[in-house]
Amino acid sequence: MVSDAPQLSGGSLLIAWQLRNKHVLIVGGGEVASGRIESILVADASISLICPRAGLHPRSRRLIEQHPDRITYHDRVFSGPGDLEDIDMVLTAIDDVSRSREIYSLCRDTKIPVNVADIPDACDFYFGSQVRDGPLQIMISTNGESPKMSAMIRRRIERCLEGYEGEAIAKAGVLRQQLKERAPGVGGDVGRRRMRWMIDICNAWEMEDFTLLDDEMIKRLLDEGWEKNIVPSVEDVGGTSRRASRRREDPEASTLSIVLPSLGAFLAGAAFATLGLMLKRRR
Amino acid sequence: MVSDAPQLSGGSLLIAWQLRNKHVLIVGGGEVASGRIESILVADASISLICPRAGLHPRSRRLIEQHPDRITYHDRVFSGPGDLEDIDMVLTAIDDVSRSREIYSLCRDTKIPVNVADIPDACDFYFGSQVRDGPLQIMISTNGESPKMSAMIRRRIERCLEGYEGEAIAKAGVLRQQLKERAPGVGGDVGRRRMRWMIDICNAWEMEDFTLLDDEMIKRLLDEGWEKNIVPSVEDVGGTSRRASRRREDPEASTLSIVLPSLGAFLAGAAFATLGLMLKRRR
Repeated sequence: MVSDAPQLSGGSLLIAWQLRNKHVLIVGGGEVASGRIESILVADASISLICPRAGLHPRSRRLIEQHPDRITYHDRVFSGPGDLEDIDMVLTAIDDVSRSREIYSLCRDTKIPVNVADIPDACDFYFGSQVRDGPLQIMISTNGESPKMSAMIRRRIERCLEGYEGEAIAKAGVLRQQLKERAPGVGGDVGRRRMRWMIDICNAWEMEDFTLLDDEMIKRLLDEGWEKNIVPSVEDVGGTSRRASRRREDPEASTLSIVLPSLGAFLAGAAFATLGLMLKRRR
Repeated sequence: MVSDAPQLSGGSLLIAWQLRNKHVLIVGGGEVASGRIESILVADASISLICPRAGLHPRSRRLIEQHPDRITYHDRVFSGPGDLEDIDMVLTAIDDVSRSREIYSLCRDTKIPVNVADIPDACDFYFGSQVRDGPLQIMISTNGESPKMSAMIRRRIERCLEGYEGEAIAKAGVLRQQLKERAPGVGGDVGRRRMRWMIDICNAWEMEDFTLLDDEMIKRLLDEGWEKNIVPSVEDVGGTSRRASRRREDPEASTLSIVLPSLGAFLAGAAFATLGLMLKRRR
């Protein structure tokens, strides 16, 4: 979905492309290409990398060495349509503009999704700044208006995440999976009831508390929650809400931070006045 | 790029798919489909919508009425391969699983990117939660682990944005465009110098201050900045930094908030001690 009251034009379609067990051709091995290699590895695809060895960025070289099972390296330049056989996606990052456009048109002819670095009109899709924490992936696009600002927004988003989100989402995924095994079936009433119950748990629990979930807690959550169609608290299933326990401490801390300086100032004032009066009496 | 030290597996490839002047087929008109229609309109594509009128969600009906020039509506069910002619992408959101799979395999045969709602293994790509502010688009994906949590992260990101980002990015885009017109050329030295200068401005200025940019300021920025190869401040080109002006106020406020109570406590302590000693002297 797009957010509320969107302006219905001028954007892109942001999507999570699925590449598990797919084969991606990357032409070029420089710095930009090395970033592409990482992005494709993240998406669980195998890679054919075509680039003369002299053109390999150190990071590309390292990735080739670290993932020989996933990256097939060809120490040469792009050689024509034959290189596109059984390829599901093509990414090029080379300086040769005419060669880039040649590869683009070959991909168009064979309807292979293609991104040509630095030539927007030769791209079926663009990349953006990304944040990743386990199963959580966030992409920031400025639709080509300001790559620098998309990187700034990325850092701002990284700061506003608290670090447990990826683990919490992964644990929620485990719970969801075990719930599906206990109450199988695609769609229909059971599907709706599963979705409703998962949403109720997510609303009732602090996201951070999902990181506490272990097999024992998940079993109790399903036995005492799903089976009885209720939403147990973290404590009900043997956990201690991290966020809640911190909240109990915070107010004290913040109160002290006001009381202590004031108390100090009060005593200082008292001492000051006492001293002043005593000296006066001496005379 | 993916963020630092990423785990190189288990994710998707998040991309901004380009659909300007493309033609998208949407099969189904229910609530899910109505969200798809909005996403496709945002991406500047034209739409063929196939759904019996009885199945149209009110939002779908409204969008059809509001965008007759962009949405071609067909009051019927999907009728076979003929419906896929000249189609660049297919999105289905219907309850009929076998019909959905039929459409999916037709798209596979003709290599048309396809998303079938609720059937993950019949999707070339997934959708995620999205934030949009003008040219800024942010997508949150949990790779199917927890749609609810991706919506929660979306709201958290919306809260950590300050509201001016979209406008700032749009203005930076205008500056970038006018810079390209003044110093044309793709790539090469001029391209690198343009990129470097834009990055320097983005680093030197508060993002919020880009919202101040009008034609006059942009002209001064290019005349007194780009031409002389320097980075003028907002004030240099006739603006007043919003963030900076706020910052000048903040510290005073925060200092007073500590000084006043302490001063009060000091005087109270002094008064208390004085009173105490004077009473003592009375006796």
